[in-house]
Amino acid sequence: MTSKFNQDLDKNPANYQPMSPLGLLDRAADVHPDRIAVIHGERRYTWVAYAQRCRSLARALIGAGIERGDTVAILASNIPEMLEAQFGVPMAGAVINSINIRLDAPAIAFILQHSETRLLLVDQQFADVAREAVKLSGMQMNVVDIRASDVPDAEPVGVVDYESFLAKAPADAQLRYPEDEWDAIALNYTSGTTGSPKGVIYHHRAAYLNALGTTIYARLNIGKAVYLWTLPLFHCNGWCYAWAMAAVAGTNVCLRKVVPQDIYAAIVQHGVTHFAGAPAVLSALVMGKPKDWVKPETPIWLACAGASPPVTVIEQTEALGFEVLHVYGMTEQHGVNTTCVVQDSWADMEHEERLRHMGRQGVRTTVAGEMIVANSVTLKPVARDGKTIGEVLFRGNLGMKGYLKNPDATREAFEGGWMHSGDLAVVHEDGYIEIKDRSKDIIISGGENVSSIEVEEVLFTHPAVFQAAVVAVPDEKWGEVPCAVLELHPEHEGKLTQEDIIQFCRSKLPGFKTPKHVIFEPLVRTATGKLQKFKLRHHVAQIIANRNH
Amino acid sequence: MTSKFNQDLDKNPANYQPMSPLGLLDRAADVHPDRIAVIHGERRYTWVAYAQRCRSLARALIGAGIERGDTVAILASNIPEMLEAQFGVPMAGAVINSINIRLDAPAIAFILQHSETRLLLVDQQFADVAREAVKLSGMQMNVVDIRASDVPDAEPVGVVDYESFLAKAPADAQLRYPEDEWDAIALNYTSGTTGSPKGVIYHHRAAYLNALGTTIYARLNIGKAVYLWTLPLFHCNGWCYAWAMAAVAGTNVCLRKVVPQDIYAAIVQHGVTHFAGAPAVLSALVMGKPKDWVKPETPIWLACAGASPPVTVIEQTEALGFEVLHVYGMTEQHGVNTTCVVQDSWADMEHEERLRHMGRQGVRTTVAGEMIVANSVTLKPVARDGKTIGEVLFRGNLGMKGYLKNPDATREAFEGGWMHSGDLAVVHEDGYIEIKDRSKDIIISGGENVSSIEVEEVLFTHPAVFQAAVVAVPDEKWGEVPCAVLELHPEHEGKLTQEDIIQFCRSKLPGFKTPKHVIFEPLVRTATGKLQKFKLRHHVAQIIANRNH
Repeated sequence: MTSKFNQDLDKNPANYQPMSPLGLLDRAADVHPDRIAVIHGERRYTWVAYAQRCRSLARALIGAGIERGDTVAILASNIPEMLEAQFGVPMAGAVINSINIRLDAPAIAFILQHSETRLLLVDQQFADVAREAVKLSGMQMNVVDIRASDVPDAEPVGVVDYESFLAKAPADAQLRYPEDEWDAIALNYTSGTTGSPKGVIYHHRAAYLNALGTTIYARLNIGKAVYLWTLPLFHCNGWCYAWAMAAVAGTNVCLRKVVPQDIYAAIVQHGVTHFAGAPAVLSALVMGKPKDWVKPETPIWLACAGASPPVTVIEQTEALGFEVLHVYGMTEQHGVNTTCVVQDSWADMEHEERLRHMGRQGVRTTVAGEMIVANSVTLKPVARDGKTIGEVLFRGNLGMKGYLKNPDATREAFEGGWMHSGDLAVVHEDGYIEIKDRSKDIIISGGENVSSIEVEEVLFTHPAVFQAAVVAVPDEKWGEVPCAVLELHPEHEGKLTQEDIIQFCRSKLPGFKTPKHVIFEPLVRTATGKLQKFKLRHHVAQIIANRNH
Repeated sequence: MTSKFNQDLDKNPANYQPMSPLGLLDRAADVHPDRIAVIHGERRYTWVAYAQRCRSLARALIGAGIERGDTVAILASNIPEMLEAQFGVPMAGAVINSINIRLDAPAIAFILQHSETRLLLVDQQFADVAREAVKLSGMQMNVVDIRASDVPDAEPVGVVDYESFLAKAPADAQLRYPEDEWDAIALNYTSGTTGSPKGVIYHHRAAYLNALGTTIYARLNIGKAVYLWTLPLFHCNGWCYAWAMAAVAGTNVCLRKVVPQDIYAAIVQHGVTHFAGAPAVLSALVMGKPKDWVKPETPIWLACAGASPPVTVIEQTEALGFEVLHVYGMTEQHGVNTTCVVQDSWADMEHEERLRHMGRQGVRTTVAGEMIVANSVTLKPVARDGKTIGEVLFRGNLGMKGYLKNPDATREAFEGGWMHSGDLAVVHEDGYIEIKDRSKDIIISGGENVSSIEVEEVLFTHPAVFQAAVVAVPDEKWGEVPCAVLELHPEHEGKLTQEDIIQFCRSKLPGFKTPKHVIFEPLVRTATGKLQKFKLRHHVAQIIANRNH
């Protein structure tokens, strides 16, 4: 028998609409038409103007033959057109594929092919690599060139420029809002720290929920948020911040080059209140502080994602007037899922202890659903002892739809009804998680697990160390042993030996965790600040093999 | 052919869970276990303790035989148990029916019968009326008595008190989270400004979304929110604030009696940051200001719902250190759907003009979906001219599931795919709506529409007027004419005549809008501060008929 609470009570258009971030743009344009939505150099767009440009892009795409469920890719820096594409592409019913601008032509060609991209928007800054990638892909696709006066001139890749494309948009084309909130909104290729890139599919439901959740943890709803785009928009759609900024009708400040000079200039000129980035951004802020910098009265909010930055870097960043919140998430979970919520009780802690607490990955956000650290197979949660390592697993409404054309990888990721992050962590007594390693990066030495991150943290406490990475190398006796790759501060270069470092570590770590090899050379990171340790492992193994010869 | 973005990409438990406010409680208890969640007199519950009590209530209900989809009612002031029921009842899979405490026994009996209430929780303060209502209903139901030391002793209604009920909860009872986000979570009987009460069904999806939306418009995520419960929890589940406070793990301050003395005492003692109420609460604040009141440095945020309070009241409230936000919504839409967002440009306005702008119902909230003011039948939106009257219509994700056991009323409410609010409004040039009347309260005089609210606003500008209501009375010549019912400030009582008032209005209104009759007597309001104009119309018609004899 149907319950009385279900009888004649079906959903109807008045009480059920597909959730989507697209409506947030319409509301922002209605409620704050004249507020500045986008700033780039001398360019300014109000929320009405921004919304109009997004709609024009959508209509132009429809006019160009784009259908529901087609892929439209963009290769661009954090410029206004990149922000427009975040709304304009899905408003045409298409799926936006924001491509990593640091990739080479063969990698881009792979993405264009795999995603079956029908149309590509190209920032003039990347015209050359885009031209080569399109050629390599062997595909027929429309290319729209985004012309810009702030970068060197380049030969167009396609036959139409962005502004002409928008100008020719058919005014009567009907915008295509999602028919179902489970419809795809975006495609993000993982940077591939392990193996070949996978296409992570975002859906309207999670994109909307994460936009709302972001306004909560980032406190974007306080007065007028001015968000500086230091975080690449091709990374989890800028962790969904383009959509979150529409939820609060704040101001987006574009940034083509993430260099301290431009960051500080934007902060001063536009009254930036929020920005986000990898730990490298914090170091850059500290190193690149202008002489005339005046610490702001209200701290500027800064989300820091990725590995924990050294305590001293957090300290120095705070001293400059930034409020650092450590956050953690992954492409497969629509970006940020945990934040290191600051507890009142930390105020009473000794300075360094407080900073150590702040550098953890923390607790789940309001919209993130459930998170456990557990045995990957039995799904049994680990003890809250700060020691036992398990895999971080998510369950809720922020999980991706799955991987594009990769049912095996999708099934594996969702094994047992939880999203397997591949990140290994411990849970502290207070319930805060701390990432110890990628599951593929753990070092097994003499049967013992060695967290590469733990060894790196020790290395960072050495005053000469600027960057550090620890990976496994094969060892006849122990199976694997830790090897440290170090970049020293310029003034210390050439002044330290392998033995100095090993001795330093031995004083702070048990023997099996102490690196057996040290290599001094620059570390290569991906566009999102990640180390590709599987590449580094391979590279290091060759160096050590040669040494042993 | 299935699109590649839908192939092998079904929902699974890792990426799709029913949205519900219930999970917000679990997160708050995990992330802020030791933060104070509930304060009542000397009682304090941390978030862990509050969550435990909610879970115990759920398990006790399950132990008492409550099944999924059963109705559990509560008749209580804003005390801790009332907050616990907002989570505990739905955690048992049941639907919470928070009954208006101002109702008489027959009205409560009707609700118990119509809702098929299986179990009733009774605050000792309302023992007598509850006992009578249960008897009148002729129903068999479990009654749990909430004992309290801050109200006079009363004979128990049932056989078990709340604390014993919780203590006996079976520890192994499995909590029942929703199987579908469309499942009912609450039942709210409309106060019946027109006709007999209808049972409005809330669903988990909208309750969750509105909780998130509330944290955004009310800025509950700023530091630690301390919310004072001046707004009855039986009204739209306190507009969903019990759930919103869990989203930010703020502090709920209970309040049994909404009197200025207790409000000010709570503000000072607990550092209240937020509260909400009808315009009458603002007047009470102004009238009841303690002698030693010190204006707070940071204004206390105050949501004011219902008819716009007189400009002078807003002004006086602001002067005391409160930041007033006018909000508007309805039971059928899970509470607040519009807020009068303050625009920067208003700062340059003349004082009174700014206050007039602030008293409008405003623009839709971030999560409210679409809102139009339109012809009720053609659905054609009215011009943004501040003059043309239409009905406020909603479409989105905040609409109720429908009315319980009333398919006709449900169908009528959702006619044409929009939720018909029954409120008449104009839209100003800036897109802000202003309510002019309930559709059933408009006065048609000589074929012209007269907004009773517009006439009331004029009456409020008279210094002697404390409360005012305008309703239609039958008139042989004009069909209907406006009649004013007035409550004067004590010092003016008996010193004004009908003619004085009519002359005053004539100087400010066209003839057809000027009241033809004036009655001096106290106005009776519902528990939620609403006038039941259909009752007043009937009452006034008799008085005028007697006068004409």
